[in-house]
Amino acid sequence: MEKINKYSKKEDYSFTMGAFPTYELILKRPELVKVIYIHDNYHEKEELISTLKEKNLAYEINSKVINRLASKENTYVMGVFEKFNNSILERSHVVLDDISDMGNLGTILRTMNAFGIRDLALVGNVCDIFNPKTIRASMGSIFDIRFEHFDTFDKYYDRFKENREIKLFMLSKNMEDSLRETKKPDVFSLVFGNEGSGLPDYYEKYGTKVFIPQSDSVDSLNLTIAVGVGLYEFTR
Amino acid sequence: MEKINKYSKKEDYSFTMGAFPTYELILKRPELVKVIYIHDNYHEKEELISTLKEKNLAYEINSKVINRLASKENTYVMGVFEKFNNSILERSHVVLDDISDMGNLGTILRTMNAFGIRDLALVGNVCDIFNPKTIRASMGSIFDIRFEHFDTFDKYYDRFKENREIKLFMLSKNMEDSLRETKKPDVFSLVFGNEGSGLPDYYEKYGTKVFIPQSDSVDSLNLTIAVGVGLYEFTR
Repeated sequence: MEKINKYSKKEDYSFTMGAFPTYELILKRPELVKVIYIHDNYHEKEELISTLKEKNLAYEINSKVINRLASKENTYVMGVFEKFNNSILERSHVVLDDISDMGNLGTILRTMNAFGIRDLALVGNVCDIFNPKTIRASMGSIFDIRFEHFDTFDKYYDRFKENREIKLFMLSKNMEDSLRETKKPDVFSLVFGNEGSGLPDYYEKYGTKVFIPQSDSVDSLNLTIAVGVGLYEFTR
Repeated sequence: MEKINKYSKKEDYSFTMGAFPTYELILKRPELVKVIYIHDNYHEKEELISTLKEKNLAYEINSKVINRLASKENTYVMGVFEKFNNSILERSHVVLDDISDMGNLGTILRTMNAFGIRDLALVGNVCDIFNPKTIRASMGSIFDIRFEHFDTFDKYYDRFKENREIKLFMLSKNMEDSLRETKKPDVFSLVFGNEGSGLPDYYEKYGTKVFIPQSDSVDSLNLTIAVGVGLYEFTR
């Protein structure tokens, strides 16, 4: 097999680090697995190997390679998988515009999966969805989510503007735009902007605003909390 | 003035790193300020100094000390403040039992502040609320929140069991325990357990269970998301 290098955006593979996300990979997307590395001291080696044999997946018991590749100590299982592309479908979406934190992106994948919204549009200059930091924070949910990149919001809008309501999470002084008050359509796009700056004002033209009522003592909610609360309410 | 060392749990002071949380400190809890350090290259030096003079607070323009103490590059303003204690009041609380991630704790402080629930009980072996990582994630909200440590949940329970409903965020098969269905009392304690293991089963005796409806594809929601959604619903 080819030599596996530390994670790089340029390579066509990435990693799951730890037993839990690696099991998610094996069970949900076995066709993506290049190889599974198992540390010599891993307690549940036998069980894992029997699953891998059953699914006819390649593995190596190789503590050295884990020590070389893992970004965190105490990693006992690692999966190497091919990066994948998939198109999002004509149903409800989360849209993340220009977000930059990989931990946030992973947490959002996990949260979408929990609330059953599994199509994600990534617009503009978004952080790397395949970085192991994102994968780790997603807790394996990356293998349940369809996602697609769009260079600009216009490109997303041109394809999906029909038959849905586009809800823009941004400040508004109109109480009717409160998340508690706003009507919940069957098919929606929930659009969130950058962690620091939010959505630019000119996005107003693409849909209707919605805001999460909150006290004046904070500048804003953390992005992942806003996505979580938004999804909870729109999937009510 | 005494020599200021890098952050340690043992010292009686901690830091705000960056202009935003330092302004929060200065405006909300000026009596805690020991000194504010300002980098020579900070763009808005004049404005900050005039605020500090007005409030009669000590400051130094000292890039060296910032470089020595800051855990992140590009820190231009740092506050040194005295650690403080405060008792929580007889109103609604968040209770965090045995949580371990400082970023999570900070995000929860910020989220509580946003939803106007400003009393936090920390039970058992909880991560350090004064660590600069917690402070940074709280975005200054630590200065708005009352918090108090309890060695055990029993100690919390003995003091606060009357006149409130204690809602335990844990798994339940009873649909009446769903967050969407459960009645929202005026005064409540929302109790959350460790990031990995949740609340122990025997906590059931302390209150009633509540769970956030979610798909089977995920093991659980991220702790901070669960707190955010819980607060959003209970403050409806």
